[in-house]
Amino acid sequence: MPQPFSFRLVKTDGAARRGEFVTPHGSVQTPAFMPVGTQATVKGLMPEAVRATGAEIVLGNTYHLMLRPGAERIAALGGLHKFMNWSLPILTDSGGFQVMSLSELRKVNDKGVTFRSHLDGTMVQLTPERAIEIQKLLGADISMQLDECLKLPASHDDIARAMRLSLRWAERSKRAFEARAAEGPALFGIAQGGDDLLLRAESARELSAMDFQGYAIGGLAVGEPQEVMLNIVSEIAPRLPAERPRYLMGVGTPHDLLEAVRRGIDMFDCVLPTRNGRHGMAFTRLGTINLANARHADDPRPLDEQSDHPAARTYSRAYLHHLTKANEMLGAVLLSTINLAYYQALMTDMREAIMAVRFADFQNETEAGWARGDLPPV
Amino acid sequence: MPQPFSFRLVKTDGAARRGEFVTPHGSVQTPAFMPVGTQATVKGLMPEAVRATGAEIVLGNTYHLMLRPGAERIAALGGLHKFMNWSLPILTDSGGFQVMSLSELRKVNDKGVTFRSHLDGTMVQLTPERAIEIQKLLGADISMQLDECLKLPASHDDIARAMRLSLRWAERSKRAFEARAAEGPALFGIAQGGDDLLLRAESARELSAMDFQGYAIGGLAVGEPQEVMLNIVSEIAPRLPAERPRYLMGVGTPHDLLEAVRRGIDMFDCVLPTRNGRHGMAFTRLGTINLANARHADDPRPLDEQSDHPAARTYSRAYLHHLTKANEMLGAVLLSTINLAYYQALMTDMREAIMAVRFADFQNETEAGWARGDLPPV
Repeated sequence: MPQPFSFRLVKTDGAARRGEFVTPHGSVQTPAFMPVGTQATVKGLMPEAVRATGAEIVLGNTYHLMLRPGAERIAALGGLHKFMNWSLPILTDSGGFQVMSLSELRKVNDKGVTFRSHLDGTMVQLTPERAIEIQKLLGADISMQLDECLKLPASHDDIARAMRLSLRWAERSKRAFEARAAEGPALFGIAQGGDDLLLRAESARELSAMDFQGYAIGGLAVGEPQEVMLNIVSEIAPRLPAERPRYLMGVGTPHDLLEAVRRGIDMFDCVLPTRNGRHGMAFTRLGTINLANARHADDPRPLDEQSDHPAARTYSRAYLHHLTKANEMLGAVLLSTINLAYYQALMTDMREAIMAVRFADFQNETEAGWARGDLPPV
Repeated sequence: MPQPFSFRLVKTDGAARRGEFVTPHGSVQTPAFMPVGTQATVKGLMPEAVRATGAEIVLGNTYHLMLRPGAERIAALGGLHKFMNWSLPILTDSGGFQVMSLSELRKVNDKGVTFRSHLDGTMVQLTPERAIEIQKLLGADISMQLDECLKLPASHDDIARAMRLSLRWAERSKRAFEARAAEGPALFGIAQGGDDLLLRAESARELSAMDFQGYAIGGLAVGEPQEVMLNIVSEIAPRLPAERPRYLMGVGTPHDLLEAVRRGIDMFDCVLPTRNGRHGMAFTRLGTINLANARHADDPRPLDEQSDHPAARTYSRAYLHHLTKANEMLGAVLLSTINLAYYQALMTDMREAIMAVRFADFQNETEAGWARGDLPPV
């Protein structure tokens, strides 16, 4: 029998939390970072390479997978884990965010959202019930409710309307999930409310009363300044049930992760480490490093010889520069790997710092390392 | 001390040969297939993944590397092996072929070839002496003489002129190599002569008298029918010294490899397994398979469950189809891996068949497998 979802808080340090959740496909140490496997692949990387960066869970995008290859097809092929050869936990989003950002001619009403597929122009309807059905077909360990996610800035009325619609969809998602889900997987609710603290607080209160197995803060990192995002996290994280995991969706930079963990967030996903890796940008202990810069052309040193990951210790900056300039796939592969390994190392270090009740010191040390910046030229 | 280059013939079966050559970076079993690492990377693959396909040697392209990142730069960084993290043997071509196929405004005279770089438009000169110098800077285990390679069809006069120029360049390459090379690496001559057997025979005879450590047949697979190519190989391979390795440059399909090994060829390189892999095409025991074809969309079976390589046994055709249609990097990575593994398995099987003096039977069985074609639909 697969383990049903559960979450255990192991240690706190101020608002920062060290925990663990258990899913049908294994357990995950928190705070956790989830690499994004948009189209049933973390771009360019073999699943064993993703695992070797330290990842214990990946995210799949419902929007992409429902359109291609299709949820029913993946189910017939044995589910997303088998399809993409990833045996550890998978969280799927509900598709709502990408309906807003990628599709055209979308129309939102109480029933759900109707949109034109960015792939073939067909009209597709996504309702809270269908979003749950799709995630069940994919075999997600953690499903997300369908929500309406606005781009900021937006008017108070629009934010309020979308937040309350998302609450009604949360209820319907939960009913659909309980009717459909096998024993084991979990459903998370998503708090909305834009940059309005009162609306955010209303959303958190109403969602908490619905008793989800986990809670996300959605609709952030969509154009607002970092301080606005962190202020909302500071205010809203404590209003979510302490005994449930808290997931800040689509965030962020290494600095965002530090600041959000400090405020009580347990889970993250973001395309930055892979997307920026594909564009020659490395995240390291020494800050961000642009490998396209000519100063690396003759540099025999690895990106970070103190890294735990062999890719960051083995390949010279000169080689990574060359691959980046030559637009070689291996440059994207190596930098995505190195970046994911850095993100995972940062999470590991944060977990250890919380256990040792020295998170504030760890944050200061880490930020000081970034501020010192990269190695001086050879 | 690194081993100096040597070649040992182990067994023959008709004209087919089983052998081994030793280089400063290790030994290679022949017949051997060399994956192409154009820009200091076999496209998309980590060096350990290339090794895991069974490859014992890779090819680097002098033309690309001299233009970017530059031979002197690679030398300063410790040589091509270190630069690309490949510790086994490397053969480099001389750049001649790609000067002809990629650059503009090229001008050939006795001294060498002057061309406009396809990258930045600068004018670059490549002489036999400079081609040797570059390959020495790269640290090649096997260097190739500069030659002039024509596209076929070409006139008899043009072919004769280019062949004789290549012979003069062969002599100059050898002198330059002997003056420059450290103990250990080898220099191969290249027989030219287009599709003219008398010119080919003249080239082979003159080159043989120069006593290279190995001999290539160049200027084939440049537009002529397969039977023309194989006829030249049949006639020319026996005119090259039996105690030296024979390398058929830029060839070919799995069928080309079988036919050329049967005629006494020991070494091959070709971009087909990686280039076609990037375009959704798989080479297998069951023939070539186009993963973009819709018939694979729901097929849970792996490409070839009898493959020795896990990638060919693990991922479903449906998944490979999805990655191909979605233009995901991982599709290119997996199919390049699967194709290189198939090429290497074919070479291994050919070597075993020669040892067992059953090459003709093996060829018939292999071709019968391809002719039966792919699995019937599920």
